[in-house]
Amino acid sequence: MAPTNSAQALDGEAIVARLKALAAFTDVPGEMTRLSLSPAHRKAAGQVAEWFRAAGLEQIHMDGTGSIVGRYAADRPDAKTLIIGSHIDTVRNAGIYDGNLGVLVGIAAVEQLHREGRRLPFAVEVVAFADEEGVRFPSTLSSSRALAGTFDPACLDDVDADGMSRRVALRAFGAPVETISACARDPAGTLGYVEVHIEQGPVLDALGLPLGIVTAIAGATRGTVRLEGQAAHSGTMPMPMRQDALTAAAEIILAVERRGSADVAPASLVATVGTLAISGGAVNVVPGDVQFSIDVRSSNDLVRKAAVVDIEREIEEISARRGVTPHLAWGHDAPAAPCNEDLRARLAAAVDRVGVPAHHLPSGAGHDAMVFRGVLPMTMLFVRSQNGSHNPREYASPQDIGLAAKALHGFLVDLAGSNSL
Amino acid sequence: MAPTNSAQALDGEAIVARLKALAAFTDVPGEMTRLSLSPAHRKAAGQVAEWFRAAGLEQIHMDGTGSIVGRYAADRPDAKTLIIGSHIDTVRNAGIYDGNLGVLVGIAAVEQLHREGRRLPFAVEVVAFADEEGVRFPSTLSSSRALAGTFDPACLDDVDADGMSRRVALRAFGAPVETISACARDPAGTLGYVEVHIEQGPVLDALGLPLGIVTAIAGATRGTVRLEGQAAHSGTMPMPMRQDALTAAAEIILAVERRGSADVAPASLVATVGTLAISGGAVNVVPGDVQFSIDVRSSNDLVRKAAVVDIEREIEEISARRGVTPHLAWGHDAPAAPCNEDLRARLAAAVDRVGVPAHHLPSGAGHDAMVFRGVLPMTMLFVRSQNGSHNPREYASPQDIGLAAKALHGFLVDLAGSNSL
Repeated sequence: MAPTNSAQALDGEAIVARLKALAAFTDVPGEMTRLSLSPAHRKAAGQVAEWFRAAGLEQIHMDGTGSIVGRYAADRPDAKTLIIGSHIDTVRNAGIYDGNLGVLVGIAAVEQLHREGRRLPFAVEVVAFADEEGVRFPSTLSSSRALAGTFDPACLDDVDADGMSRRVALRAFGAPVETISACARDPAGTLGYVEVHIEQGPVLDALGLPLGIVTAIAGATRGTVRLEGQAAHSGTMPMPMRQDALTAAAEIILAVERRGSADVAPASLVATVGTLAISGGAVNVVPGDVQFSIDVRSSNDLVRKAAVVDIEREIEEISARRGVTPHLAWGHDAPAAPCNEDLRARLAAAVDRVGVPAHHLPSGAGHDAMVFRGVLPMTMLFVRSQNGSHNPREYASPQDIGLAAKALHGFLVDLAGSNSL
Repeated sequence: MAPTNSAQALDGEAIVARLKALAAFTDVPGEMTRLSLSPAHRKAAGQVAEWFRAAGLEQIHMDGTGSIVGRYAADRPDAKTLIIGSHIDTVRNAGIYDGNLGVLVGIAAVEQLHREGRRLPFAVEVVAFADEEGVRFPSTLSSSRALAGTFDPACLDDVDADGMSRRVALRAFGAPVETISACARDPAGTLGYVEVHIEQGPVLDALGLPLGIVTAIAGATRGTVRLEGQAAHSGTMPMPMRQDALTAAAEIILAVERRGSADVAPASLVATVGTLAISGGAVNVVPGDVQFSIDVRSSNDLVRKAAVVDIEREIEEISARRGVTPHLAWGHDAPAAPCNEDLRARLAAAVDRVGVPAHHLPSGAGHDAMVFRGVLPMTMLFVRSQNGSHNPREYASPQDIGLAAKALHGFLVDLAGSNSL
């Protein structure tokens, strides 16, 4: 069924055929739902391992976090290793490209080297990570963190909605949990990490460009604001006497939007209010208690922090003027993960060689790649997606996928000729 | 237990003692919850009937809608009737004053006439309505509508959360359902309707005034707005490309507030967004679908309608500018019920005679009185309340209650001397 014997491993149609074959492994028939460590995930991992073998990868195994790992040996002993990775778990009712595409493009690039009989002066590992989406367990990125050496053993005790711990789920999956600490790679022996992924936003599609070079994975600050005003009867409380928590929230929401739009470098800053709930809200009640989220992201940490400070000041000012009490709790603060300049320039050159302009853009979404910040040089290639991601309508064309596979292959060949190895 | 033999029926402390005694009849021990036609309501109705008897009211009976009615005969045959009413059903976890106070002040005023041996040239009926709060059944005000002649028989088929119809609940309550149509009063034989009620808003309390004369019960327009934008990943969708339904809603919420505050006559117009829900909202998702309510009220129908038109225009303008699609549905439109000028002037004079300034204000909340719009002359007296209403902290002082009872008694005596009878 899988077209492992097609003449050209880098052919986009062939990769799409594998994406569709992989999509058959779903926890919910009729949609693409493959939660981390689920039975469908286990079957998909088996299929991926088979494609690994066909591509010439060796030492194929499941690591302690449930990732499938395969190695394409170097042309010399004691060579360094380059890691190509992405994930094969999905969100609920997902599309077929998010995560899976990066694994299949990685397989294709190695398969092409294998068919060419070409060995590189470094080994190439392909990794199909097991835990990126963070849907099933409260923590996420545990499988890529294991490679980065930052796996937190406490996450083994996280439980899913059915009360099953990650530890028990890993054992049922067949993962040798006791070997997790051995997953950590020696930075001295590792060249870097490369990931291909659909762009989860609309930028490449809007620009009419098939591929994009990621500058950095954005840092993010997330928090919750609760405004305490005074609930009142909507008919009997005169306008000037109100302490309306919702109108105060509305003014803050617009301030967040305005500040998020006031970036010096367009598209590097975004600020979003994504949830809002009124406690005890009713048509005829002036809202007395409103809670909402704030999410601020930028590929530049200073830009993000300046925005957060300004938003805090706006919350204080608006709340004081309107007689509501703000309770602000920042719950998450992750720095940006910049892509390595040298690898990024080589990736851009490889994109240029397949005949498309190399557009550089930040990634507003998180990826496995981000865990290698400060550990390994990292770079990412985006493939244009229609309709974003995390929904059944996400779409990358076979043409664009073929270009990505050719660019990744070219990047490997170019890196092989580098003096810096 | 009930102080029916106190020297002075108009004494505020005595009325408060009865309010507290009546509060013992609750469906939920430890709080004041007396839903319409509940077992607690039935017991409260029995207690009220007993106080009716003690006050000299006659022909005491339960009408077809569950109201308790008593009559204090005139000094002559073929006299007209003045109705004093309020309700003894409550919301869940209510205070003890809302509704009940008006019934007990009505009883007290008649009891005082009775003790004085004074008959008036008109009969006085006191009515303890059974269905004002609208908590149990989807329709409300059925018992006052029966008197106004606008009872809708379809409401007998309304069912509560347990699936019991109003018809079955009325029969279990002991109400002669088949006599409902006979409840309608002949306007030619009826002088009017008077209701005493706590102010459900903060105006009298803020002004430091014990009593208020209602100018009109506000008309209301209520509706729902749904904004369809485009959901997107909060990290990957650049600010200029967003169609954020929540920021559009925020701008509309502030426009509603601004328009509600732009009234020529202060406090006669209010506009409120009381509910808001984001479909599929999450911290990391730009909201694509938001729904919220709008509630516009004024004692002046033209003022209200002008505000509604302006708000509609703002919704269209803001939605178009932000690329979201608005769906606006006005579901409720009730005209204002103005108080009768003559009765209102007499009530103001009576208030003046008990030594407090007669402040005139609209009622933003609905009351049984509003159903008599266009049917009977109607007037209302507000008693200052701390902490609004519909909550256990609502509070009217014995002093203010005593002033209300004296004013109502004085109003009756004054009306007896009127040439217009």
